[in-house]
Amino acid sequence: MVFSNNLNAGSGNDAPPEDFSEEFPEILPFLRRQARGFCDKSTLLKRLPILNWLPKYQLNYLFSDFVAGLTVGLTAIPQGIAYAVVAGLEPQYGLYSGFMGCFMYFIFGSCKDITIGPTAIMSLMVAHYVTASPDYAVLSCFLSGVLILLLGILNLGFLVQFISIPVTAGFTSAAAITIASTQLKSLFGLPGQANDFIEAWSNFFRHIHDIKLWDTILGITTVIFLLALKKVGTVQRWRMFNRYLSLSRNALAVIGGTVLAYLLFTLNNEKPFTLTGNVASGLPPFRLPPFTTTVGNQTVSFGEMIQTLGSGIVAIPMVSILESVAVAKAFSKGKTIDATQEMIALGLCNIMGSFVLSMPITGSFTRTAVNNTSGVRTTFGGVFTGCLILLALGFLAQTFYFIPKTTLAAVILAAMFSMVEYELLFKLWRTRRIEVVPFMVTLMSCLILGLEYGIVIGVAVNLLFVLYITARPNTDHNVRKIMDTETLILTPDQSLVFSAAENFKYKVLKYTLNAPNTIHLIIVNGHYVQSIDVTVAMNLNSLVADLKLLGKSIVFWNWPRQAVGLAWRLSPEFGALFKRNDNIEDLVKLWNHDKPDYINGVICN
Amino acid sequence: MVFSNNLNAGSGNDAPPEDFSEEFPEILPFLRRQARGFCDKSTLLKRLPILNWLPKYQLNYLFSDFVAGLTVGLTAIPQGIAYAVVAGLEPQYGLYSGFMGCFMYFIFGSCKDITIGPTAIMSLMVAHYVTASPDYAVLSCFLSGVLILLLGILNLGFLVQFISIPVTAGFTSAAAITIASTQLKSLFGLPGQANDFIEAWSNFFRHIHDIKLWDTILGITTVIFLLALKKVGTVQRWRMFNRYLSLSRNALAVIGGTVLAYLLFTLNNEKPFTLTGNVASGLPPFRLPPFTTTVGNQTVSFGEMIQTLGSGIVAIPMVSILESVAVAKAFSKGKTIDATQEMIALGLCNIMGSFVLSMPITGSFTRTAVNNTSGVRTTFGGVFTGCLILLALGFLAQTFYFIPKTTLAAVILAAMFSMVEYELLFKLWRTRRIEVVPFMVTLMSCLILGLEYGIVIGVAVNLLFVLYITARPNTDHNVRKIMDTETLILTPDQSLVFSAAENFKYKVLKYTLNAPNTIHLIIVNGHYVQSIDVTVAMNLNSLVADLKLLGKSIVFWNWPRQAVGLAWRLSPEFGALFKRNDNIEDLVKLWNHDKPDYINGVICN
Repeated sequence: MVFSNNLNAGSGNDAPPEDFSEEFPEILPFLRRQARGFCDKSTLLKRLPILNWLPKYQLNYLFSDFVAGLTVGLTAIPQGIAYAVVAGLEPQYGLYSGFMGCFMYFIFGSCKDITIGPTAIMSLMVAHYVTASPDYAVLSCFLSGVLILLLGILNLGFLVQFISIPVTAGFTSAAAITIASTQLKSLFGLPGQANDFIEAWSNFFRHIHDIKLWDTILGITTVIFLLALKKVGTVQRWRMFNRYLSLSRNALAVIGGTVLAYLLFTLNNEKPFTLTGNVASGLPPFRLPPFTTTVGNQTVSFGEMIQTLGSGIVAIPMVSILESVAVAKAFSKGKTIDATQEMIALGLCNIMGSFVLSMPITGSFTRTAVNNTSGVRTTFGGVFTGCLILLALGFLAQTFYFIPKTTLAAVILAAMFSMVEYELLFKLWRTRRIEVVPFMVTLMSCLILGLEYGIVIGVAVNLLFVLYITARPNTDHNVRKIMDTETLILTPDQSLVFSAAENFKYKVLKYTLNAPNTIHLIIVNGHYVQSIDVTVAMNLNSLVADLKLLGKSIVFWNWPRQAVGLAWRLSPEFGALFKRNDNIEDLVKLWNHDKPDYINGVICN
Repeated sequence: MVFSNNLNAGSGNDAPPEDFSEEFPEILPFLRRQARGFCDKSTLLKRLPILNWLPKYQLNYLFSDFVAGLTVGLTAIPQGIAYAVVAGLEPQYGLYSGFMGCFMYFIFGSCKDITIGPTAIMSLMVAHYVTASPDYAVLSCFLSGVLILLLGILNLGFLVQFISIPVTAGFTSAAAITIASTQLKSLFGLPGQANDFIEAWSNFFRHIHDIKLWDTILGITTVIFLLALKKVGTVQRWRMFNRYLSLSRNALAVIGGTVLAYLLFTLNNEKPFTLTGNVASGLPPFRLPPFTTTVGNQTVSFGEMIQTLGSGIVAIPMVSILESVAVAKAFSKGKTIDATQEMIALGLCNIMGSFVLSMPITGSFTRTAVNNTSGVRTTFGGVFTGCLILLALGFLAQTFYFIPKTTLAAVILAAMFSMVEYELLFKLWRTRRIEVVPFMVTLMSCLILGLEYGIVIGVAVNLLFVLYITARPNTDHNVRKIMDTETLILTPDQSLVFSAAENFKYKVLKYTLNAPNTIHLIIVNGHYVQSIDVTVAMNLNSLVADLKLLGKSIVFWNWPRQAVGLAWRLSPEFGALFKRNDNIEDLVKLWNHDKPDYINGVICN
C-alpha cells in the first residue's frame, strides 16, 4: 500500500484529456452517406446499369444471350406453373409472375446471371394468404416491392448481414424439406390440404390408402429421369449436347408427361393421371394492384387485407432480399455486389410485377444457374426469357391442360434435393460444432412453426451467441502478478459493454480476494478495450470504492481515449485513476521484463 | 507478387495446430457450476443465512433491530394500503402482502437492510389483471415466486445484467411518473379510471371540473408536509430527533389525516374528504393460492387465468428481480451480493406470500432506506415489522376506514419525486450523449405502451447498440502501408462475428482496390481478434479467392489458435495462410521499424 494514498487522491500526472471524442464515429457519416447516396454524378450509371453495358454491346453477345434466354425460359415455364400450384394459385399466375421481372431486371439489374421470378420459397410463404383470393398474393407482391425499394434507397440492406451462414442454410434446408413435403400430395395423387410440413405429412399418412398408382409411377419415374439428366450434364463426352440436354431437363420432363397424357386421352380416352386442368389463356391485364378485394360477396378493405397479410408484410420482402442476395453472392465471382442497386432492381421488379397479377418474386437459384451455365453475356438474355413466357401465355395455355400434376411435383422435388444443405451441416460439424445449434434451431423452428417465425427465432438465437460473447470478456488467460511486487495485472480480452459490467467487476474482486495479503495494487490493462459505456464506467467507479474499503488500490492503464474522457466527466477523482500510455513497447517491457521500479515510476510519478 | 505463388500453394511453414480448442470455453464449466451449486458443503450456510448470523447474535443488536423494525412498519402500513389502492385491490391486501415477506426474508435473506413487500411498480404492473378478481394478483404472486425461485436455482439471475443503467433508470422514471399520474385522481378527489399514464391524464382533464376542494387542499398540504419532513432529516441540530421525525413522516401524515377526518365526522358529522372506507378486519386465511376463480357466476379455469395474465407471467418476476437486485446493490456497500441467494429468498417470499393472499412483492427502495437509516443490525428487524402489520390487521382495521384517500395519494406522490432519475439523465447527457437514447426510448415506450413492453423495447434497443458495435469492427484507424514494400497491414480492432463478416471482407477489398498498383500483399493482423465463427471464416476464404482474381495475396497474421484451427479444418489451403506469431514484440518491430526483409522472412520462409 505504498502508493495508495497518492493514487486515490487523484494527484493526476495525466491531465484530463482535451479530446472528448465520442465513439459511434460512424453514425453521422453513415446517415450522411445514406442521404447522399442518390445525389452524386456517377449515380445515374450506377442506378441504370443498362447505360453501362448497352453502348458496349457486341453482336456476338446476342447469340449467347438468345440461347441462354430461351433455355432459362424452358425452365421458367414449367417451374412457374409448378410454383403457382405450390402457392395455391391457378397455374397461369406462375407465368404472370415470370416475365415482368425479366424485363425490369434487364434495365436495372447489375449482375448478368440473375433471373428474377417466382421461387419455391416465395410461393410457399405466400401460400398462407391466398386461400381467400389471389389478390392477396398480388398485393403482397406490391408491398414487398415497395419495402424492398425503400430499404434499398435507405441503404438498409446491411440488415441481411445479421443472418449468418448456418441460419441461412437452416432456413433454406427447412424450406426445401417443407416444399418437398407439400409435393407428396400431387406426386401420389392424394386429396386434402398440404400447406406446411406438419400438415403435408399428416395428410400423407391420413390418405395413404388413396395413393393413385399411375400418378405415383409417372411421378417417381420423372424424378429419377430428372436426377439422371442432371448428372448427364457433367459427362465429358459430347459435352455441349449433354449440357443442353441437362439444362432443358425440366422442359423435357414436362413435355414428355404432357404428350403422354394427351396421347392417352385422345387415343384411348383415358385419364390415368391427375391433370393441371384449365389454364386461363392470354396475357394478364395491366392495372393497379388490388387495394381492395372481394371474398364471397363481401368487400375486403385495404386495412383488412393488411391485417390478413400480417407478419408476411415484413417477412416476405426480407426473405426475398435474402434469397436474391444469396444468389447474387454465389454468382458474383469476386466482384463486389452493389447491394443497394440489387435491392432497387428487385423492388422495381416486384412493384411492376404487381401490375400484371404477379405474386412476390425474387432471384431464382436454379434458373440463375441455368442462365450462367448457358453462357449468358448480359441481362439482355432476360428479354428472351420474358418473351418466351408471354408467347406461352398467348398460345400454349390450352396445352397446359394436359400437364400431369405429378410431373410438376417431380420437377419441384428434383430441384429441392440440392437445396438441402447436408454438406454445410457436415462442414459445421467438422469445423465448429457449436454452430450446428443455430442451424438446427432454425431448421426445426421453420419446420414446426413456419418459415417466417423460424428465421426470426434462428436469427435471435444466433444473436444470443454474440451477446453472450460480448457479455463475458475473458480475463482468466490474462492475470499476471508482477514478480517481487504487490501488483496484479488484469487484461480483459475485448471491449467492455454494459452486459459485461457486473461480471467484470465481480471478477476483479474475486482475483483480489483470492490473494488478499500479497496484492495491493491492481492494474487493469485496457489494451484490448476499444470503448466503454456509462454502465461500465459506473461499475468500475463502484469497483474503485469497493477496493478502497478492502484497502486496495486500482489503476486503469492503457485505456482508450474515449474511456478516459468518460471517466473524467463522470468524476475527476475517477478519471485521475486512468493512466494512458500509448506506447505499446512500454507495456511489452512490463510484461516481459518485470520491472517493478518502472511501474512505480509511471504510477506514483 | 514475389511471394504470391508460395503463399497460395499453402506451403505452410506453420503446421496445422494440434490443439483444436473450441471457444465458448465457459459453456460447459458454466453448466457444471449451475448443476453443482447445490451440492457442496458450505451450501447450507449460504442457503440459510440465518444459520450464519443467529449464533453470533448479540443482545444489544435486539434494540437496534426492534427500533428499525417498528419504524419500517410505520412506513409499511400506510404504503401497503396505498399500494393496494394503486393495484386496484381492497386496502387490506396491501397489509396481507406486507408481513410474509418479512418473515421469510428473516430466514433466507442475505442482506440485512432489505425489506420485501408490496412496491409501487409491482402494484402498477399487477393492476391490469385484477379488474376481474383479486385472485389474479394472488396467483400472479405465486407464479412469480416459482419463476424467481427457478431462475435462482438455475443461476440465471445474470439475465438482469443485460439491462443497462440507462434502461433501468428510464424504466424507474417511467414507473414513477406513471404511478404519480395515477394518483392525481385520488389527490383531487376525481371519479373515473386511471390505470396507466395516458388514461390517468385523459381522466384528469375530462373531470377537471369535478375537482373536490377539500381533498385537494389536504392532499397538497400533505405532499408539502412530507417533502419538508424529508428535508428535516438532514438538519444537524437535534439530529436524532429530526432523523426519527423524518423517518416516521409517512405514518405521521396518515395518522394526522385520519384523526382530522375522524374528528370532523364525530364532532361535526361532516365528511369533506373521500375516505378509504371499509377495510376487512382480521388475518388472511392460510390456504393454497387460487388456481381457479369465479368471476360473476362463471368459474375461470387455471388455463384461462394464465391466458389473462399473459406476458405478465414473465414480466412481473423479471421486474421483481430487477427491483430487488437494484435495491440490494444500492445497500450492499462493497460486499458482493449473492444474487442466487437473493433470488431464492425473493422467490420463497412470493410463494409463501401467495398462501396469505399477497400480491407480488419485492425489495422496496423506500423501506429498505428507512431500515438502513434506522440502524438495523440483522434481518431480525423484519420480524418486528411483520408483527406490527399483523397487529394492525387484527386491531386497527376499523380505524383505516377514516384514512382520507388523498393522504394516501400524497404519501405515494412524495415517494415518487425521488424516483425520477433527473440526475442520471443529466449525467448521461454530460458524459456520453448517445446513451440518452436508450434512456428516452425506455421512458417513452413505458409511458405510452406500458411498463412490460417498455422495458422489453428499451433492452432491445440497447442491445442493438452492442450488435451494431460487434457488426462494425473498425479498421480505418489501423491501415498501414509498410514503407518501401508492396505490403498493407490491416488490423481489425475487435473480434469478428458473423454480422461483421461481409463488411470486413468489403473493407479489405476497398483498401486493396484504392491502391491497385502499389499493393500486392495484404497482411491482416488478428491481434485484437479473440475468435471467429464459420461465417467469418467462409467470408475470409472467399476474400482469398477474390483477391487471387485481382492478382493479390493475403496473409492472416497473429490470429488466435481458434481461428487457425477453424481455417485448417475448413480447408488446408486456407489454413496455410494463417501465420501465427505470438510474440508481440515482433509485431511491434514491424509496426515501428518497418523492416520489409523481416516480413519476407516470416512469410516466404
